[in-house]
Amino acid sequence: MTNDTYAHTVMQRCDALGGISEEPDRLTRRFATAALRQASAVVAEWMRAAGMTVRQDAVGNLIGRYESDRPGAKTLLLGSHLDSVVDAGKYDGPLGVLVALACVQRLHDQGRRLPFAIEVFGFADEEGVRYHTAYLGSQVVAGTFDPSILELADVDGVTVAEAIRASGGDPTQLAAARRSGDDLLGYVEVHIEQGPVLESRGLPVGVVSAIAGQSRFAIRLDGVAGHAGTVPMELRRDALCAAAEFILAAEALARGAPGLVATVGQIGAGPGASNVIPGMATLSLDVRHQNDGRREMAIDRLREGARQIAKARHVELEWQSVQESRALACDPRLAGLLTQAVESLGYPALSLPSGAGHDGVTLSGLTPIAMLFVRCKGGVSHNPAESVDKADVAVAIEVLGRFLELLAQPPNEFDA
Amino acid sequence: MTNDTYAHTVMQRCDALGGISEEPDRLTRRFATAALRQASAVVAEWMRAAGMTVRQDAVGNLIGRYESDRPGAKTLLLGSHLDSVVDAGKYDGPLGVLVALACVQRLHDQGRRLPFAIEVFGFADEEGVRYHTAYLGSQVVAGTFDPSILELADVDGVTVAEAIRASGGDPTQLAAARRSGDDLLGYVEVHIEQGPVLESRGLPVGVVSAIAGQSRFAIRLDGVAGHAGTVPMELRRDALCAAAEFILAAEALARGAPGLVATVGQIGAGPGASNVIPGMATLSLDVRHQNDGRREMAIDRLREGARQIAKARHVELEWQSVQESRALACDPRLAGLLTQAVESLGYPALSLPSGAGHDGVTLSGLTPIAMLFVRCKGGVSHNPAESVDKADVAVAIEVLGRFLELLAQPPNEFDA
Repeated sequence: MTNDTYAHTVMQRCDALGGISEEPDRLTRRFATAALRQASAVVAEWMRAAGMTVRQDAVGNLIGRYESDRPGAKTLLLGSHLDSVVDAGKYDGPLGVLVALACVQRLHDQGRRLPFAIEVFGFADEEGVRYHTAYLGSQVVAGTFDPSILELADVDGVTVAEAIRASGGDPTQLAAARRSGDDLLGYVEVHIEQGPVLESRGLPVGVVSAIAGQSRFAIRLDGVAGHAGTVPMELRRDALCAAAEFILAAEALARGAPGLVATVGQIGAGPGASNVIPGMATLSLDVRHQNDGRREMAIDRLREGARQIAKARHVELEWQSVQESRALACDPRLAGLLTQAVESLGYPALSLPSGAGHDGVTLSGLTPIAMLFVRCKGGVSHNPAESVDKADVAVAIEVLGRFLELLAQPPNEFDA
Repeated sequence: MTNDTYAHTVMQRCDALGGISEEPDRLTRRFATAALRQASAVVAEWMRAAGMTVRQDAVGNLIGRYESDRPGAKTLLLGSHLDSVVDAGKYDGPLGVLVALACVQRLHDQGRRLPFAIEVFGFADEEGVRYHTAYLGSQVVAGTFDPSILELADVDGVTVAEAIRASGGDPTQLAAARRSGDDLLGYVEVHIEQGPVLESRGLPVGVVSAIAGQSRFAIRLDGVAGHAGTVPMELRRDALCAAAEFILAAEALARGAPGLVATVGQIGAGPGASNVIPGMATLSLDVRHQNDGRREMAIDRLREGARQIAKARHVELEWQSVQESRALACDPRLAGLLTQAVESLGYPALSLPSGAGHDGVTLSGLTPIAMLFVRCKGGVSHNPAESVDKADVAVAIEVLGRFLELLAQPPNEFDA
């Protein structure tokens, strides 16, 4: 089979999995649902056809193992997730599982084994839509799963424990399902970019430098409400005008700081009538950077800017931290091999951060991680309009295949 | 009685009327409710005690008439409204009725008649809360009442016609209740300012120059939604950032144009998640000025500004007109007499526009109108915190009394 044939298969399989949903008219495949079980069963068949032994762990992760030709060889983890958001696209998750599977299929078709085993993971809960807590699948693998989460209930009152049991897992065996990192070489995930950078640079793939750290804040500004007709401009303490000034200040700061993104995604004004000056405004702030120091410096400046705006406008500022996660750098050696693989195909190897979180963040406590991004149309994800070109998928398969070859070349730690 | 005694009575009566409500714990007195009937009955007693004959017209306006000593004399209309918003203050409306009544009481106490009759109105529906259509009372007097309004139902399904009938009026006689302007000298209303201008200038009262014209718009900006972590700043088309820029542009324009007010009171961002770049933003815009030309010029500039912001940010602009009302200048002669009266008391006569609408707008088709504003604390209105000083009320009574004296001096049209 040619590389193009493998890419064609990946595209067909993304289409097929895109039809396995909890809902008739759109793709929704949450953690521990019948739809996810069905998708896993289909992928398991494809894994077996590629010469892999297949199992499902206690939380519901699907794991296909392709053995090495050396006894006692280490193991490289590949894959991505099989769960989805509500009204999802077809590629966020499955593409990474299926590209990895295509590489194993090619080895199998060639009758080849590598000096390390490969396990392809289909993680069970990357999106975290059902229980508002992402990475349950990779947390079980990494041994960081918090057992109190078992008590959480979804909108229908079904707990995590019940859902795991109903989908064939065993909530009492989650700790035992923990993977040791001792025999692992690393975890490498292929994923759509979910952003427009590769498209804007005209590149099919890119090597992830780091998964950005993220801070989220809830901001409230309190001024004085008043009659829109009777309070002159110079006597107003308009909370929404203060919010508007902050939104633009955050945008300007991020525009001037390479790699920084700052987003106000939610806004509200109270009392919220067209003829009343807003006495109150609320807004969300999301700040990300692959360098924690730069993120923290940006936040200090944003907060100081908000203070100054509030002071000048005689409004009160409330600044509340909602969430914070630190940045995670990808492993230089694995990312370097991915870079070599990209360049060997004649493409410039663009290094770019991931602004979104991934299972790799969780697995990084266990083993070195790296990621390869694939260009997606318009940077759109979490949307049925998600779109990936077959030619780019062919490049991703080729890059991951070359990465495996490079990793297999001596001298390597498994030879040591 | 001294002027202070009359002011004291007005304050006590505002308190008394403040207790007559549809609701036990807050002041709500909408059009054609039992509470409004009860308040009217109380005011009617006070009118009779001031030597007035009292009637209620077909729509429910309360009218007390204090006769002239000349047969065939013309009539001056005074007053304000007795209905209120939901959770209202005590002064918006009643103060104007009771200050007028205090002036008549003083004439009566002095045994004096003027060369014109006085009618004190307690209008029945200035706020328009119950049927979302203001000025029903003054529209009946001016003959501009639209009979189709009789079919409108309130939240309980009670129509305007039923409500008028239940409160002792007659919906079939509204056209006949129209007042002729031939024998009228004008309409003069005392009202709380509902703004902070008098307070900021340290003045108890001010003479209204005009009731501002008003334009309301619904604005929508469409950009592109995206992942807050993965779309770099320079590739974003953030609709909320465009909205923020417009909000500040509107504020800056109004700050630089004397007498202009521009307010964004409502805002929304879609999809409205903290980790999603807003692809859509909606906002309201309210623009007022006492000069229609300046209002229209400002709107042209705001619209052009919005277009430029949208163009520069590659977002789509939708600009929809929701409402427009023209400015109404107060009658120069009546306003001039009010100014004289204020100055005769030793106060500078500040001329200021009314940014809010009043029954005078409706009555202006019938007879010349003028208004006197009374300082209110913090500019607050439509709120239980509404507050007026007794000393300012005393000034208002004195100004309105002197106005009546000035109007009574020859040469005047009723002497012609």
